[in-house]
Amino acid sequence: MTTLSNNPLAVAAKSLPHKKTTNVAILGFGTVGRSVAKILCERLAEGLQLTHIYNRGIARKKVDWIPNSVRWTENIDDILSSDADVVVELVGGLQPAGDWIRRALASGKSVVTANKQLISYSGPELIALAQREKRHIAFGASVAGGIPVISGLQEGLAGDRLSKIYGILNGTCNYILSQIENRGIPFSEALAEAQTLGYAEADASDDVDDHDARAKLTILTRIGLRSNVAPDQIACGTIRIIGAVDFEYARQLGCTIRQVSWAELEGDHLYAAVRPALVKLSSPLARVEGGQNSVMATGKFGGETVFAGHGAGGNPTAVAVVSDILAIAGMGRDAAGIVAEAQQLSPSVSADFTTRHYLRFTITDRPGIIAALATILSKCGINIDSVLQKPGYSKSSLPFVITLEACKASLVEKALEQIAHLDFLVQPTISLPLLD
Amino acid sequence: MTTLSNNPLAVAAKSLPHKKTTNVAILGFGTVGRSVAKILCERLAEGLQLTHIYNRGIARKKVDWIPNSVRWTENIDDILSSDADVVVELVGGLQPAGDWIRRALASGKSVVTANKQLISYSGPELIALAQREKRHIAFGASVAGGIPVISGLQEGLAGDRLSKIYGILNGTCNYILSQIENRGIPFSEALAEAQTLGYAEADASDDVDDHDARAKLTILTRIGLRSNVAPDQIACGTIRIIGAVDFEYARQLGCTIRQVSWAELEGDHLYAAVRPALVKLSSPLARVEGGQNSVMATGKFGGETVFAGHGAGGNPTAVAVVSDILAIAGMGRDAAGIVAEAQQLSPSVSADFTTRHYLRFTITDRPGIIAALATILSKCGINIDSVLQKPGYSKSSLPFVITLEACKASLVEKALEQIAHLDFLVQPTISLPLLD
Repeated sequence: MTTLSNNPLAVAAKSLPHKKTTNVAILGFGTVGRSVAKILCERLAEGLQLTHIYNRGIARKKVDWIPNSVRWTENIDDILSSDADVVVELVGGLQPAGDWIRRALASGKSVVTANKQLISYSGPELIALAQREKRHIAFGASVAGGIPVISGLQEGLAGDRLSKIYGILNGTCNYILSQIENRGIPFSEALAEAQTLGYAEADASDDVDDHDARAKLTILTRIGLRSNVAPDQIACGTIRIIGAVDFEYARQLGCTIRQVSWAELEGDHLYAAVRPALVKLSSPLARVEGGQNSVMATGKFGGETVFAGHGAGGNPTAVAVVSDILAIAGMGRDAAGIVAEAQQLSPSVSADFTTRHYLRFTITDRPGIIAALATILSKCGINIDSVLQKPGYSKSSLPFVITLEACKASLVEKALEQIAHLDFLVQPTISLPLLD
Repeated sequence: MTTLSNNPLAVAAKSLPHKKTTNVAILGFGTVGRSVAKILCERLAEGLQLTHIYNRGIARKKVDWIPNSVRWTENIDDILSSDADVVVELVGGLQPAGDWIRRALASGKSVVTANKQLISYSGPELIALAQREKRHIAFGASVAGGIPVISGLQEGLAGDRLSKIYGILNGTCNYILSQIENRGIPFSEALAEAQTLGYAEADASDDVDDHDARAKLTILTRIGLRSNVAPDQIACGTIRIIGAVDFEYARQLGCTIRQVSWAELEGDHLYAAVRPALVKLSSPLARVEGGQNSVMATGKFGGETVFAGHGAGGNPTAVAVVSDILAIAGMGRDAAGIVAEAQQLSPSVSADFTTRHYLRFTITDRPGIIAALATILSKCGINIDSVLQKPGYSKSSLPFVITLEACKASLVEKALEQIAHLDFLVQPTISLPLLD
C-alpha cells in the first residue's frame, strides 16, 4: 500500500491557500474503526487523510497496513489538540464519548459518530453545540448501518411532509424470531444460539428488549417527523414473550411476527413504539430477512419510500461514516450544516395506536371460557374478529387465540387487566398488534 | 391560504444582511410544476419563496391558489433577468430547455431540473458550467421520481465503492408487462389499454423501447459508478417482443419478466443495458409492482442497498424537486456543489453480459429441430440447460424454449445469426437474459 506521504495530491493540497485535504482522527479502533481506516487508506486521491487513531492499549491494536504517517495515541488530548478537521467517534456509550465529542466541537473540529445511544439521548444538544461552534456533527451510521436512510429522510425527502416512519431496525431480533419461526425452538434456545454465533451480545437485553431499536427510532423520528422525542418516551415490548405457537397462529392468519419500530405523527400527537407485531406475509416488513434492516417512510406528497440493506456490521457502518466525512469535507464553512434547521415539533407521545390485535391466551380448558372473555371485551367496547384454536395441545395448558377488530391499544390493555383476574389463565396473556 | 406578502418571516428575512429567503421561479406549469407550486405555497416558514411562473398561454394556466405576489410570464427573459435564486426547469426535452438552463446559470441562478433526457445527454457539460459560474445544478427528480436515489448514491453511499446498479426504472413498462402476465393479452392490447388509461403516451416508444429507462440508467451510472457514459452507448431491447407465452414459460422456470436496467463496472469495462429479462420470482425485481420503481446498488463495503417507491407522478416528482431546492438553499456560496467532483472514469461500454439465457423459438414442427439447434449452439461453445415445451399449440406455429447455461451475450448472438437461417423458424427468435 502506498503511504500517504507518497501521495502527490495530498502534498500539493497542503501548499494551496484553500485547504483541500481533510484530516481525520478515529476514536476507537474496533470492528467499525478498522473498516473506516481501510476505506480511508484506499481512497487517497479524494481529499481525506487519516492522521490519528486513538485507542486504549494501542500496542495490541497496531496493524501494519496503516501508513507510518498516522499517529497512534492512548491520550485523548493528543487528538483534541491535533490538526484533525474531523473526529470520528466509534467508542460507543454515553460516557466518555459524549464529553469527547463536546470537547472536539469546542476545539473547532467537526464530528462524525455511529453512537446511537448518545445521539438518541443528546442529539439536539450536540447539534446545537456544533451550530454555535460553526462546525458539523453527522451521525448517518447511528441508524441502519450502511443504508443511507438519515440522509434520505433529511435531504432526499426534505421536500415532502412525512407522517409515518416504520421498519425493522434490529437485525439480532429478526434473526432470533426467524429461528423460532423456522425451527420451532423456544426463545431462550434461539437467543443462546445467536450468542454462540456472535450475532447477539452476552447481555442481549439491548437488542431483545428493544432499546437498540428504540434509540434508532428516536433518531429517525427527530429527523423524518421533525419531532423532538426522548428515547424514554417511546414504549418498548420485548420479543422474549414470543413462542413457536405464536408463529403457528400467525401463519394461520396469513402473517409472520417481526420486531417492528413504528412512529406516526397525527396532528400534534406522536404514536410511537417498538414491539413485536404480526405483519402480513405480503408486506415489505415480512420480507426482511436475517440481519437486514428496512425503513419505510410515508409522505403527504411522495407516498411510501423504502430503504433497505445491511443494517449492521463493520463495513456497512463504515460506509455511512465515510459518507458523512465526505459530506462534511465538501461543505463550505458557511454552509447551513448537515442537520437541517427545520422547525422541531414537540408532540405528546403515546403507544396508543389503533390497530387490530392478536391475543394469545394460555388456559386450563373448561366450559364458558370464550363467554367470559367475550363478555369483558364486549363491555370494553371491543369487537372480536376471530377465534382460533389449533388441536394437539394439553387441556391443562391450552393456547388459543382471539383476534380483535381495530381499536385503541389502551382499550385492549384495560380489558386485559380485567381478564388477568380470571382463574382459568395459566400464563399471562400475550397481546400483539396485527398490522395490515 | 395566506399570501406570501403576509408572511412576517419572509418580510423579516428580506431586511437581513444575510439573505435567508430563496426565490424560486418555475418554468413549466404542468402536472409536476403545479405540485411543486403547491408544496412551496404550503411551506412558507422555511425560507423558500415562489416568485415567478413561466408558461405559454398563462391565461388558461392561472389558478387562484397561487399568491398574488407571484409573477406569471410567457417571456423567458423575465425569469432570467429576475431576482430568482433558483430556476426550476420542468419544460422537458432537449431544447429550448437546455438553452434556458445555460442562460439561467450564466445569469447567476442555480438550477433544479427533472429533465432526464437533457441530463443524460448534457449533464456533465451543465455541471461544469454550473461550477464555473459558482452555482448549483441539481436533478434528483430526473430518475425515479420521489425515490431519493440520486442523493442516496451521491451522498449516502459516497463512502462506498459501488460496482453495480440495477433496477426497474420505467413504471409504464412494468404496468404493461404485468397486464400481459396476469391476463394473457398480447402486447398491443396491453399498450392500447395503458394509453387509454393515461399510463402511456400516445407515442409510447420512449417507454416501451427503453429510451426513458436508458436516460435514467445513464444518470445513475455517472453518479453511482462514476462512469461517464452517453445514453447512446447503452444497449436497449424493446418489450414489444414479449408475449403471454413467455410468461407461461417463465413461470415454469420460477421466474417472471421485467424490463431491467443494469450497469456493472468490471475494471475499466462497463456492462450496461436496458432490456426485458427473466428474473426469479423471489428476487426484489419481481416484487416491483405497477408504476413502482426500485433501484439496487451493490458496493464493495456496504453490500446491497435497496431504494424503492413511487417512480413517477406529479407529487412524488415534486418532492424530489423541492428537496433539491432546499439542498441548494442550505448550501453556502463556497460549498463544493451538490454534484461531487469525484474522479470520473471513461470505461469502454458493452452489453456483453455473462448470464444464463432464455431462447424462445417459434417453429413449424418436424423431426430434427432440437438436433439442428443443439448442433449450432454446441459449435459456438454454448451449453443447453433445459428444453421446455408446453402442450396445446399448433404444430405449424409452435413456441418452445431452450435455456442456456451462463455465457457471454455475444456468443448467443453469434449462434442466433446462424439459427436465423434455419427454415423451420416461422418467427424471429426471442432471446432474453435469465438473471439469477
